[in-house]
Amino acid sequence: MRTSHDTFHLAIPARDLDETEQFYVRQLGCHLARRYADRITLNFFGDQLVCHLSPDEPRREPRLYPRHFGVTFARRDDFDALLRLVEIRKVPLFLPLATRFNGTVEEHHTIVLRDPTDNLLEFKHYEDPRMMY
Amino acid sequence: MRTSHDTFHLAIPARDLDETEQFYVRQLGCHLARRYADRITLNFFGDQLVCHLSPDEPRREPRLYPRHFGVTFARRDDFDALLRLVEIRKVPLFLPLATRFNGTVEEHHTIVLRDPTDNLLEFKHYEDPRMMY
Amino acid sequence: MRTSHDTFHLAIPARDLDETEQFYVRQLGCHLARRYADRITLNFFGDQLVCHLSPDEPRREPRLYPRHFGVTFARRDDFDALLRLVEIRKVPLFLPLATRFNGTVEEHHTIVLRDPTDNLLEFKHYEDPRMMY
Amino acid sequence: MRTSHDTFHLAIPARDLDETEQFYVRQLGCHLARRYADRITLNFFGDQLVCHLSPDEPRREPRLYPRHFGVTFARRDDFDALLRLVEIRKVPLFLPLATRFNGTVEEHHTIVLRDPTDNLLEFKHYEDPRMMY
Amino acid sequence: MRTSHDTFHLAIPARDLDETEQFYVRQLGCHLARRYADRITLNFFGDQLVCHLSPDEPRREPRLYPRHFGVTFARRDDFDALLRLVEIRKVPLFLPLATRFNGTVEEHHTIVLRDPTDNLLEFKHYEDPRMMY
Amino acid sequence: MRTSHDTFHLAIPARDLDETEQFYVRQLGCHLARRYADRITLNFFGDQLVCHLSPDEPRREPRLYPRHFGVTFARRDDFDALLRLVEIRKVPLFLPLATRFNGTVEEHHTIVLRDPTDNLLEFKHYEDPRMMY
Amino acid sequence: MRTSHDTFHLAIPARDLDETEQFYVRQLGCHLARRYADRITLNFFGDQLVCHLSPDEPRREPRLYPRHFGVTFARRDDFDALLRLVEIRKVPLFLPLATRFNGTVEEHHTIVLRDPTDNLLEFKHYEDPRMMY
Amino acid sequence: MRTSHDTFHLAIPARDLDETEQFYVRQLGCHLARRYADRITLNFFGDQLVCHLSPDEPRREPRLYPRHFGVTFARRDDFDALLRLVEIRKVPLFLPLATRFNGTVEEHHTIVLRDPTDNLLEFKHYEDPRMMY
Repeated sequence: MRTSHDTFHLAIPARDLDETEQFYVRQLGCHLARRYADRITLNFFGDQLVCHLSPDEPRREPRLYPRHFGVTFARRDDFDALLRLVEIRKVPLFLPLATRFNGTVEEHHTIVLRDPTDNLLEFKHYEDPRMMY
Repeated sequence: MRTSHDTFHLAIPARDLDETEQFYVRQLGCHLARRYADRITLNFFGDQLVCHLSPDEPRREPRLYPRHFGVTFARRDDFDALLRLVEIRKVPLFLPLATRFNGTVEEHHTIVLRDPTDNLLEFKHYEDPRMMY
Repeated sequence: MRTSHDTFHLAIPARDLDETEQFYVRQLGCHLARRYADRITLNFFGDQLVCHLSPDEPRREPRLYPRHFGVTFARRDDFDALLRLVEIRKVPLFLPLATRFNGTVEEHHTIVLRDPTDNLLEFKHYEDPRMMY
Repeated sequence: MRTSHDTFHLAIPARDLDETEQFYVRQLGCHLARRYADRITLNFFGDQLVCHLSPDEPRREPRLYPRHFGVTFARRDDFDALLRLVEIRKVPLFLPLATRFNGTVEEHHTIVLRDPTDNLLEFKHYEDPRMMY
Repeated sequence: MRTSHDTFHLAIPARDLDETEQFYVRQLGCHLARRYADRITLNFFGDQLVCHLSPDEPRREPRLYPRHFGVTFARRDDFDALLRLVEIRKVPLFLPLATRFNGTVEEHHTIVLRDPTDNLLEFKHYEDPRMMY
Repeated sequence: MRTSHDTFHLAIPARDLDETEQFYVRQLGCHLARRYADRITLNFFGDQLVCHLSPDEPRREPRLYPRHFGVTFARRDDFDALLRLVEIRKVPLFLPLATRFNGTVEEHHTIVLRDPTDNLLEFKHYEDPRMMY
Repeated sequence: MRTSHDTFHLAIPARDLDETEQFYVRQLGCHLARRYADRITLNFFGDQLVCHLSPDEPRREPRLYPRHFGVTFARRDDFDALLRLVEIRKVPLFLPLATRFNGTVEEHHTIVLRDPTDNLLEFKHYEDPRMMY
Repeated sequence: MRTSHDTFHLAIPARDLDETEQFYVRQLGCHLARRYADRITLNFFGDQLVCHLSPDEPRREPRLYPRHFGVTFARRDDFDALLRLVEIRKVPLFLPLATRFNGTVEEHHTIVLRDPTDNLLEFKHYEDPRMMY
C-alpha cells in the first residue's frame, strides 16, 4: 500500500503542449492542474505528471525499455475501464493488450500507449496484487 | 488525493544493478521487491520503480529538464526526514535544498538527487498542499 | 477521490421550510442538522446543504441547465438504492431514469428529482468511475 | 464524515468558458477534468463542478442568499492556505474574511469569492468541526 | 459514516461478571478489555461496552422497547456471519431472525439476543445502507 | 479502532419526542435522521440513537450506574469542542467536568449530561487512547 | 481492525542471510528493507520481520507449537493468491492446506511453510472474519 | 503502510495461562479475544497473539536476540503512552528505555519488556518513520 496523501511526480518532455493536453486530458481523462508557457501539470490517476515543453525532443521509434511509466491497477475492473476508454476513444496504442509471465506469480495483463511526444505509458493488472512492486 | 490501492510505476535505466540496489535500498531506504538478471523492482515510497539493466546508457551531464521523478510530500515533517537521511547518508546531490516560486502559491522546497545512472530524483514539499498537482 | 474530512456546501432557496424538511428528510432520507427560523441545514449524502427561506422565489417551470446539483455514486448498488427509494417513497421526478452519452466513456445513468421549491437534483452513476469529474 | 468515493456535483452557469476556466483553474487551482463546446467540468476540491455555457445569464449585482456554494474546511490550515491563495493571486472577493456567529457554537470564519459569471463561492472553517453540517 | 478513531460507549448492568464475560467473550466473540471487581469493559464490535456489577438488577421478562442496543452491519456478509455464530454457539435468542418494514425503504433484517442479565441486543442489516441512522 | 462502515445502535426511552429532538438536535448538535409518530432516530456522533416514545417512563433521580452511554473522543480537541458546546448552549449537566482515576493509566476526563427523559450521557477523553475500551 | 500506521515487528533467527533473503524475498515475495552484516529486515506483508544471523541455531525437526508466525487474511482472495504463489514457486511446505475447527465459528483454512532456518510460518483465513483475533 | 484488514499473528509459549492473561490484559492493556484450556488469544495492539500453554518451557535467562517481538509506533505520542503505562503499572522491564543507532537514520527509541514466560517484547519509535521496516 502507498500513502494517499503523498504523490509521485514525474516530469517528461512534450513537443507540443496543446497536443499533450489533448492526449492526456481529452483522451486519457487526466485532469489539467496547471498550464504555464513552458509546461502543463496533470493530475494523472492521482499522481503528478509534468510535461515540459521540449520542441527539440528527437523523433525516433520509441522503445519500451528502459523508460516508460504508467499505473498498476489493483482491481481488474479498473484496468478494464481503461481498456474500454482506449478502445472507444481510439487512444494510440504502442502495444496491444497482452499477458506476460503466464503461469508465474508475476503474471499480468498489460497495454502500452504512446503519447504525442512518443513517451510510452504502460497500464497493468496483476493476478496476484502483491506483485505490484 | 490518490488511491492507496493502485500504484504508479516507472521504468528507468540502470547501468549496474548492484550499484542501483546500493543507491535505492541502502542509501535512499527503498525496499527491494524483486531482483532478476536484467532488472530490479523497488517499492519506492509506496510506488513501483523498475530499474532495467542498461549498461550502454550514455554518460553525460544530466539535466533536470525535461526528465526527472520523485515524491511530493504532503507534510513538512516527511520532507525533513528525507533531508536528514540525505545528509546523514551522504546521498549524492545534484541540486541542494532550494525554495522555488517564492511568494507565489506554487512556492515549494526542493532537493534533487542523482542516482548512479544519472537519473535525477526530485523531492518536494509545497507550502500549499493543493499545489501538489 | 475527495477528502473525507472537508465538506462541500451548497445554499439553495426554499419557499417553505416545513415542506423542504419533509422532502429532504422524510422522503430523500437526508439528516436534519440544524433548523433556524430562516433556514435549515442538512447532512446531504455527507455534504452540507443549506436551504434558505425564500418565500418569494419565483414559480416557473424548472430547467435542468444550467443549475442543478446532486450526487455521483461510485458504485452501482448505491445508485440502485436511491432509485428504489425514489420509487417506494414516490419522490417527485423531473426526469425519469435515463442513460446518457451511450457508447462513450462518459456513459452514465441519471435520474432528476424536483424539490418543493423546484430545485432540481440529479443523481448519477458512470460506467467508468474515472468520469465522475 | 462523508464518503471518499462518491462525489457531490453541482452545475452552474458560465457566461464565457475561457474566463471560467481562467478563474477556476488558473486562479483557484481547481483541475480541469473535461472541456466540451458547451461546458467544462472541474475537479473542484474533490467534488465535481460543471460550468454550462450560458451567455445570456443576466448581469446583476449578486446576492449571497439564497444561492452560493463552496467548501467547509475541517482544518484551519487548509482554510488559511485558501486565504493565502486568494491574496497572492488576487482572486476577486465578494466579501472579505469575516467571523460569523461569534461566541456561539456555530462560530465560523468565512470568505466569499465571485466568479466571472457572478456565482458566489463561500469558503468556511468552523471552530467546532461538528458544525460543518 | 462514523469516525474510526472515536468510540461509542455504553454502560449496562450485569448481575454476575463471570456469566457476563462468558456470554460476551466466549459466546459472542467480543474482546475483554479490562476486568475490575465491579465491572468488565469490552471491545464490542469496535465500540466500548461496560458491564457494571448489579446483583440486584430486578428479574423480569425483558421488553424490546424502549431499551436495547446492538450493531447495524453495512454488509450482508457480516450480518450472516453473526447469524452463523448465533446458531453454532447456541447464543440465547429473544427474537428469531425476522424482516421488518417489508417493502419500504427502511426494510431490514433483525435478530435479538438476550444476555444473562436480560439486556437485549439487536443486530440488523438494512437493504438500503443509508437507513442505518 | 472500529470500522467506519458499521454502526452501533442504541434504543432509549423518550417521554416527549419534541423535547427529545430539541435536546439532541438543537442543543447537542446531533442530526435528525427520521421521525415517526412513536420514535425519532438520530445520527449521534456517527452512530444510531433511537428514542422511543415512552410517556410513562418513571420520573426519578437518575443514577450514573449501571446505565449510561456516550462517546469517548480519541482527541482532546474534540472533547474540548463538546465542553465548549455544553457551556455555550447551557446543556443540562448531571455531573460537571471531572478527572477520574488520576495517576493511573485509565485516567480520563469526563462530563455527564442529562437528557429530558433523564437518560445520562457521558463524554470522555483518556490520556492514553488505548484505554478507550 | 488494526491501525495502518503502526507496525508489528518480529525478530527471528536466520542461519544464513543469503538463504533467508532467497526464501523471503525471491520466493515469498516480501520486500527487503535493509541488509546489515548480521541481519536483514523485511517488509513482511506490511509488518517488520528482522532475521538475525544465528549460524548456531540448532537443527531439529520443527514443531508448530508453541512458536510460529504468519498472516491472517481477511479476504479469501488474498489467501488464495498466497496458495497459488506457494504452489507455483514451490515454497517448502511444513503442513499442506487444511481446514481446522470445522463446523465451529473458529473454522479456518491454514497452510504452514518452513523457512531455511526451520521457522514455521502459518497463513490463515477464517470463515468468520471476527475470529481473526 | 500495512493494510488495516489483514492481521499479523504470532504464537508463543506460555508457562501459565492465568499469569499470561494477567500480564497481557491487566498490565499491558491488550484485549482477551478467546480463552481455551490450552491457549489464550489476544488482540495485541491490533494484531493476533496466541499464547500456547507450555508448562515445560525451559527457564533460563532470556536473550534479546534472535527472538523477540513488539510494536513500532509511528507517532512519538503513542510510544510515550506505552512508556507511561509501563511505569505506572510497573510492567517488568528487561531493558530500560534507550536510544539506539544515535546519529544515524535508523536512530530509534526502544524499551524491552519481559512476560511471565520470559518472552521479550520490544517497543520502538524511529525518528524517521520510513525506517520502520
